[in-house]
Amino acid sequence: MPGIITITTDFGGVYPAIMKGVIASIAGDVRTIDITNALPPGDISHGAFILRYASGYFPAGTTHLAIVDPGVGSERRALVIIGEACQFVGPDNGLLMPAARAQGRFRAYEITGLDFYTKKVSPVFHGRDVFAPAAAMIAAGRAVPGLKEIDDPVDLDFGTPEIEGATIAGRVIYVDDFGNVVTNIGGDALRGFYYLGEPLDVNGWPATFVSTFFEGREGELLVLAGSHGMAEIAYKGGSAAVMAGLSGGAEVVITPKKA
Amino acid sequence: MPGIITITTDFGGVYPAIMKGVIASIAGDVRTIDITNALPPGDISHGAFILRYASGYFPAGTTHLAIVDPGVGSERRALVIIGEACQFVGPDNGLLMPAARAQGRFRAYEITGLDFYTKKVSPVFHGRDVFAPAAAMIAAGRAVPGLKEIDDPVDLDFGTPEIEGATIAGRVIYVDDFGNVVTNIGGDALRGFYYLGEPLDVNGWPATFVSTFFEGREGELLVLAGSHGMAEIAYKGGSAAVMAGLSGGAEVVITPKKA
Amino acid sequence: MPGIITITTDFGGVYPAIMKGVIASIAGDVRTIDITNALPPGDISHGAFILRYASGYFPAGTTHLAIVDPGVGSERRALVIIGEACQFVGPDNGLLMPAARAQGRFRAYEITGLDFYTKKVSPVFHGRDVFAPAAAMIAAGRAVPGLKEIDDPVDLDFGTPEIEGATIAGRVIYVDDFGNVVTNIGGDALRGFYYLGEPLDVNGWPATFVSTFFEGREGELLVLAGSHGMAEIAYKGGSAAVMAGLSGGAEVVITPKKA
Repeated sequence: MPGIITITTDFGGVYPAIMKGVIASIAGDVRTIDITNALPPGDISHGAFILRYASGYFPAGTTHLAIVDPGVGSERRALVIIGEACQFVGPDNGLLMPAARAQGRFRAYEITGLDFYTKKVSPVFHGRDVFAPAAAMIAAGRAVPGLKEIDDPVDLDFGTPEIEGATIAGRVIYVDDFGNVVTNIGGDALRGFYYLGEPLDVNGWPATFVSTFFEGREGELLVLAGSHGMAEIAYKGGSAAVMAGLSGGAEVVITPKKA
Repeated sequence: MPGIITITTDFGGVYPAIMKGVIASIAGDVRTIDITNALPPGDISHGAFILRYASGYFPAGTTHLAIVDPGVGSERRALVIIGEACQFVGPDNGLLMPAARAQGRFRAYEITGLDFYTKKVSPVFHGRDVFAPAAAMIAAGRAVPGLKEIDDPVDLDFGTPEIEGATIAGRVIYVDDFGNVVTNIGGDALRGFYYLGEPLDVNGWPATFVSTFFEGREGELLVLAGSHGMAEIAYKGGSAAVMAGLSGGAEVVITPKKA
Repeated sequence: MPGIITITTDFGGVYPAIMKGVIASIAGDVRTIDITNALPPGDISHGAFILRYASGYFPAGTTHLAIVDPGVGSERRALVIIGEACQFVGPDNGLLMPAARAQGRFRAYEITGLDFYTKKVSPVFHGRDVFAPAAAMIAAGRAVPGLKEIDDPVDLDFGTPEIEGATIAGRVIYVDDFGNVVTNIGGDALRGFYYLGEPLDVNGWPATFVSTFFEGREGELLVLAGSHGMAEIAYKGGSAAVMAGLSGGAEVVITPKKA
């Protein structure tokens, strides 16, 4: 069974296909599967969440190539992470860390010589010249030249919500294509503090705690535990992000509705 | 030769990739091919047309995974359809039926125990926890546990145009990415009632019956038999949907131009 | 190792998937990789550049299926190009030529009988009925019936910039998803005439010659040699195309800033 490389980027356009060409040139029967190439440009936190969420559903042995890299061309290191279950390749800016931690123990390596695949490394497209070749070699079972183990990869987490009484204050991690707002508040916290059908208040807007979109009424905010396990704010028949004025990083305060 | 699973959804975002991860975990060498993941949310009729059209071009043995599922989390049944030529997996809301009928005889089954793959079935993402696992098992030649044959799957058709004299009244099934309007009027009906080059009237707008986009003039509505066999309204150099104010479900009345 | 077919079109929607179904029906284990299906409709020059750029990264033996075909249904010929390194299939309108030339020597063939795969060739979807079947046969090592060698395929090039003193006048080939403007000015010309960090003037707008996005300041135009080897105009924190009013075909004049 040939290996799998997943691809998670903010590239858009033709750039992911260029990487697939490089991968096919190095490891012809490795399959590539796009997780997404439409991340908001430079939004490392959003990318890290998507990678952590999606990578959990791929089989052991998968190599995850992820690039949201506003520092391309700077001194930021190029990372390879070899984990118990799977591998990660991408920039050393925190993007890979939540996913790497979620899959078990791992070791992190810097790619010390970026020109291991081509002598002409573009300063603006490490995806093509550094990261894709490294991922292809790993997926094909070959060593990436020049790896040096490091113990200080740049870290990133999604923050911890604050809880006071039955009020939970977290933040928006990202907004999906439906306008649903994904937060850093765990679905378990919702279930611990609220009952299904309870009227809530989200940043001052009336809402209801439900278990599925199906239960809600048109025209009201819904709070539910999303499929990724985190609290999500939805709006039946529209965009919760628009209705409640929420975007990435914004604070979300959920509290029971005052009587 | 490994099996093929096609994917047709209104999911957008990262959700199709999650399903591909689940499929790769169950059936590593099954290939997935996206038909589309950009259907208008909840538009079952549009999805059903696309699935019927596209599935006809895939080889026998293909498993078609299709999800437009506004009722997810409700009591709607989860369907497996085993046909003479190919298989279908998705919600029991009519989405699969036109495609299933078009491929020959078939039997329909309800998935009675939704937790056959994971004990924690998300009420909001049956694609990941129910439909993708079922499609992967079928494509890998394994039995899906708990199937029960049913004889009353929810049906759907695209309606039958009304014909009076040389006037055909049908409706819009969907609008494609070029703004071309696809109707439920068969291309054969066009050819039966009109001659190539004939001036027509479409909902009061001047139009011409042509056989290809190439023949039309810039700035005029064109009526032609589309590649899917249905009558299509196009506008050279723009969007017919915008120019003629047509969207999904709208009535389309085609008649010869009055002298 | 199964063959690879790349796909480059302006189709959008479900049409690329239909072609993948046809390809899978003819050559089940050939893999398809999308280069892009979101080219601006009918923009042959843009498509030719993308195909030339991307095809260079795919392994020898790859078959490139490319369709930007405003003349579909007219008398334009259907082309197969067999090159030293790889093959191309698409309309005879110049789309394939820059890529074909870049890969070495080649021979060009007209597909004389378009109905070699299906007797009902749609006049509006040669992608499905002519080009995809031809590409699948080639990728599977089978002969396409009715090929006739020709010596006059329609040609296309990207023009040659004019240089006067240290002023370079070229033109926009296309604008990418970030709003970066790709020109027909070679990156080597930039390096020959300007020094890194030199203040420039682009169509009257202040700019700086840099080697990476990382070096530029927010809110200024950047001129750099892009990853494809051509001069690119970028805007830190926004769209250079919007900021400088540049779109496909527009003239771009780069000159050192007057003191």
